[in-house]
Amino acid sequence: MELEFIQWLREHVPAHPCAKLGLSDDAAIISLAGRDEVVVTTDLLTDAVDFQLGMHEPRRVGRQALAANLSDLAAMAAKPLAAFISLALPRGGGAGRNALELAIGLYEGLLPLAAEYDVAIAGGDTNTYDGPLVLSVTALGLTTDHGPLIRSGGRPGDWLIVTGALGGSILGHMLDFTPRVKEAMLLHERYDLHAGIDISDGLALDASRLAKTSGCGAVLLTGRVPVSPDAIRLAEMDGATDVPAAALHHALSDGQDFELLLAAPPTIAQAILRDQPVECRITHVGELIAEPGLWQQAAGGKRIALEEIGWRH
Amino acid sequence: MELEFIQWLREHVPAHPCAKLGLSDDAAIISLAGRDEVVVTTDLLTDAVDFQLGMHEPRRVGRQALAANLSDLAAMAAKPLAAFISLALPRGGGAGRNALELAIGLYEGLLPLAAEYDVAIAGGDTNTYDGPLVLSVTALGLTTDHGPLIRSGGRPGDWLIVTGALGGSILGHMLDFTPRVKEAMLLHERYDLHAGIDISDGLALDASRLAKTSGCGAVLLTGRVPVSPDAIRLAEMDGATDVPAAALHHALSDGQDFELLLAAPPTIAQAILRDQPVECRITHVGELIAEPGLWQQAAGGKRIALEEIGWRH
Repeated sequence: MELEFIQWLREHVPAHPCAKLGLSDDAAIISLAGRDEVVVTTDLLTDAVDFQLGMHEPRRVGRQALAANLSDLAAMAAKPLAAFISLALPRGGGAGRNALELAIGLYEGLLPLAAEYDVAIAGGDTNTYDGPLVLSVTALGLTTDHGPLIRSGGRPGDWLIVTGALGGSILGHMLDFTPRVKEAMLLHERYDLHAGIDISDGLALDASRLAKTSGCGAVLLTGRVPVSPDAIRLAEMDGATDVPAAALHHALSDGQDFELLLAAPPTIAQAILRDQPVECRITHVGELIAEPGLWQQAAGGKRIALEEIGWRH
Repeated sequence: MELEFIQWLREHVPAHPCAKLGLSDDAAIISLAGRDEVVVTTDLLTDAVDFQLGMHEPRRVGRQALAANLSDLAAMAAKPLAAFISLALPRGGGAGRNALELAIGLYEGLLPLAAEYDVAIAGGDTNTYDGPLVLSVTALGLTTDHGPLIRSGGRPGDWLIVTGALGGSILGHMLDFTPRVKEAMLLHERYDLHAGIDISDGLALDASRLAKTSGCGAVLLTGRVPVSPDAIRLAEMDGATDVPAAALHHALSDGQDFELLLAAPPTIAQAILRDQPVECRITHVGELIAEPGLWQQAAGGKRIALEEIGWRH
């Protein structure tokens, strides 16, 4: 129902001069009275959907909730500033912990991450109730002199490049990933990037979103997609007969990679690929084109339609 | 457990130069790179605790969630700017509505309030899950040239004044109240207020909080507390033998009044009481004193201890 509701929101939530992008990018940009622009993002995570409290340590869940927000700020090339943590805690606790122990466990995961990225935990709201664990995190960031990196800046001919490796995040990466904040800040400062998005719902779907928001189509070079070892492991665990093909499918469609997909002019993208200026590997995975739709470049250079596979909420 | 957890937070969440007040006021103040200071507040509401979905129309619940945040901004004398709405919706819906209808109902309540106070609904996150309805609202505001109105600015000798009438909010006011934004902005602009708080957990408890944060004690003039008609009605419904005493108890201790409690020097407070410059009545209800604790001025001027009754989470 989320897609239907977002459609309803687009039709019913009025535009406001102080707010930009909110419903069509990774975060909203709020213009203040002075010269500042603050970038705001919010994520709500629920037990049994975004994590499994019985299976995942509370500290990993708490870390994930903040990390997902930092990833959204990274996608806007905004420096993280502060976060607000709201909890609805099951009255009886969970996973063998009472509600207080559960709350402390969540914070023990997110506080070190906040310290690492110099994010103020500036407030929140803690409640107990008769229901599953719900975390709602809102994070504020500031754009740099280079302005925000938005989804709509891509142009036909831009190359698509991606940080890290994709797929199989359910095996652990979805909880323990590094939000690409430092990478986004450095790349946005040194190179003329056109557009960016964080891959939260799968490369195919998020590439399609970036392309559509930029008024373009996208071609993915499926043979070059960096497939993570976890995607291969997952394909093996699935008992796939063609493991490489199944692993590629995971890399294209699994949610919660939290890597960055960036669009830049070919010469800029080539410089980034040559320089490899950040710790994680950057790979060329596609191109924006004038023709709408999502495509893959098959062997022999033929362009065939690619399904927008991914994690749909 | 909330109090124990807040204690844990105070000990474990590090201070950060960009964030002020977060854990000890109605909202946090975030200093940005430029001259701006943004005020941020967040509230999480759950079904069966903050509202009853079976009993209360979704549009009233949606309105309440935003109004509670606006009340926090009012308590800081911050002009509301933008709000972010996150929902955890029961997968099967509730109160005879499916999840989509429920979400739309909530927005149909909060959108008119946002329009009335010129607040941008700038983003959010909508999810379905197997649990009760949870709403998490984060609101941003901007301080004026007069700066924020904080809890800690009260001084011994300041008079305590309150907007509106108190108690019995459970009969409807808790959902349909007017956040005192306009009142706070006007009073803070025209008069030299020292401190403010919104009464969300009862006059006695919130007066005690304001006093403590200001390093003072407080005396309440219990004979002058403006008792709402709903507090009287509730006392009658309770079958109280002494209805006025029971109604006063409601006025002192009921949660969710969302009126403003302000501290100002006596001459300023007297001017406000004489001018009555806002639509709702303003009443003199007490005084800050050097001696710690919460007290009431009994008949004959004798000062006796008053229990910090109120809504404890």
